[in-house]
Amino acid sequence: MPYACAMGEFDLIAHYFTRPVRRAALGVGDDCALLRVAPGMQLAVSSDMLVAGRHFFEDVNPRHLGHKSLAVNLSDLAACGAKPLAFTLALSLPRVEEAWLKEFAGGLLALADAHECELVGGDTTQGPLNICITIFGEVPPGHALLRSAAKVGDDIWVSGTLGDARLALDAQFGKIAALPSDLLESATQRLECPTPRVALGLALRGIATSALDLSDGLLGDLSHILQQSQVGADIDADAVLQTMAARHHGNGSLSLTDDQWYQCVLAGGDDYELAFTAPAKAREQVMAAAQSAHTPVTRVGQVTQEPGIRVLDRHGHPLKNQSWASFDHFA
Amino acid sequence: MPYACAMGEFDLIAHYFTRPVRRAALGVGDDCALLRVAPGMQLAVSSDMLVAGRHFFEDVNPRHLGHKSLAVNLSDLAACGAKPLAFTLALSLPRVEEAWLKEFAGGLLALADAHECELVGGDTTQGPLNICITIFGEVPPGHALLRSAAKVGDDIWVSGTLGDARLALDAQFGKIAALPSDLLESATQRLECPTPRVALGLALRGIATSALDLSDGLLGDLSHILQQSQVGADIDADAVLQTMAARHHGNGSLSLTDDQWYQCVLAGGDDYELAFTAPAKAREQVMAAAQSAHTPVTRVGQVTQEPGIRVLDRHGHPLKNQSWASFDHFA
Repeated sequence: MPYACAMGEFDLIAHYFTRPVRRAALGVGDDCALLRVAPGMQLAVSSDMLVAGRHFFEDVNPRHLGHKSLAVNLSDLAACGAKPLAFTLALSLPRVEEAWLKEFAGGLLALADAHECELVGGDTTQGPLNICITIFGEVPPGHALLRSAAKVGDDIWVSGTLGDARLALDAQFGKIAALPSDLLESATQRLECPTPRVALGLALRGIATSALDLSDGLLGDLSHILQQSQVGADIDADAVLQTMAARHHGNGSLSLTDDQWYQCVLAGGDDYELAFTAPAKAREQVMAAAQSAHTPVTRVGQVTQEPGIRVLDRHGHPLKNQSWASFDHFA
Repeated sequence: MPYACAMGEFDLIAHYFTRPVRRAALGVGDDCALLRVAPGMQLAVSSDMLVAGRHFFEDVNPRHLGHKSLAVNLSDLAACGAKPLAFTLALSLPRVEEAWLKEFAGGLLALADAHECELVGGDTTQGPLNICITIFGEVPPGHALLRSAAKVGDDIWVSGTLGDARLALDAQFGKIAALPSDLLESATQRLECPTPRVALGLALRGIATSALDLSDGLLGDLSHILQQSQVGADIDADAVLQTMAARHHGNGSLSLTDDQWYQCVLAGGDDYELAFTAPAKAREQVMAAAQSAHTPVTRVGQVTQEPGIRVLDRHGHPLKNQSWASFDHFA
């Protein structure tokens, strides 16, 4: 709580984060931003806080960090089937480094522009590096994809590729042998620059019975759908494994133990893909939605009446290890 | 980015921050919350991030901290004349302390309930203590109180009392002589539990020409109105000084230098009162609005054509010291 003058904070915000207002009625620079919500639409709201040393390395490429900070929030809108509208950015920085800020803002605003999602306000302060974004989207009443409506017999699907982000992290921590440089690069790209599946979420409205985004690992996240829907799941571990890009690298030359592979895809975290359920009779609709969204999807299991998750091998037998470590912020 | 299991984060949120949904269509527990915005209303949005050691002492009473975290956001809605609807809470905590969380949540939710402002979602993570709230309110289009519409000749008003929060802080830092215990207590109350002037902001719609809330000190904050409205101001230092509760303590027995008094009221920070402008012919309307909102207001100056701020003594002469240090997060 120091008191010297200078208006540094305001200059900073103005320079990197203030742009002409587009759709908002009032943007950065007043006590509040003012938004119009289309008549009859519900507002979908989500907040994510990213902390240095916890969600990213302090020396990560700032452009990637800007991208990821917004991507994880867009991913929440995708999981609800909501169309992005706007966001606020609250930023705590240890110091003002212009080069860092320029790159961070560049990565953030490029992704924002790609999704027509407008930065409308926020806060900046000095402190340990912390990025908190609150995002707003719109969805017609009754059309949001929730976690609570999976039905027994539904297929379980995932989008894109799982496990590669975790592979990059394990390599960086030296938990696995060094990766070939091209693989390390592509896996690190997945870790640092995830692709929010906004188009897929919109395309799945009216088709999927439930959905969420995968931030903490498939099994841990899926359990939220299962608990809220009061159902269970059988998961085909091999089907999930096939989604992992690294699995196909150099015709399978990468040498990891089965447990290491499964850890990455089943409980890797940082995937920012969608997991969703849909009736078996809607398979063609799901595939058509995926195609329209230019996003691959893979069927990886089935919703069961029996509670809990059973992870099965290619022969339908339960894997020996059924207790995969899931990401948890207070572990 | 550790990966052990336990679901601690989710239990924590569920226990202290999940309550039955009231007005929201969907509250805590899914990827997004879903809000209804009344037809024809604009959404007012504001984010504030509070960092330990910067905005509060880490050992501050957690109930007060919960109150203040929401109060500073409600104060932004008040400054826009917006009616509170809902908020999200993102929380980074060094460790999970149940007693602390219970008190923090208690202070936060008591103020939320008093303003019928619903907690609809957020995020929790481990890291340096950081509290980021994004708040939503509604306001009819064209009725929001902005910073950009002050007019030459308008009166300048402030609500409530200024400077006492800064007095408490200066006493805690030992920058001034020790305060009598009753005064220290009341001033600390102002610092730790500010009163957001929501009712006043609503009552001033259609009367005030501009408004903002005072977080960084009167002169620094007022300059935002003046710059955005392209005007200047004459400020009656004595009129501002009279608002300060400590000024009247023990019939003026408190011994501070003139500069110390002025520093507190003119550039103290943490007041969370409203400063606003209104036409001179609207004085009776302003007083009626203040009365209906049960909030004292004081006329402290006038908007001028000449840019900048002139601080005048009781005789209308400029104070010698015109460069009061304003709060800045990157000083």
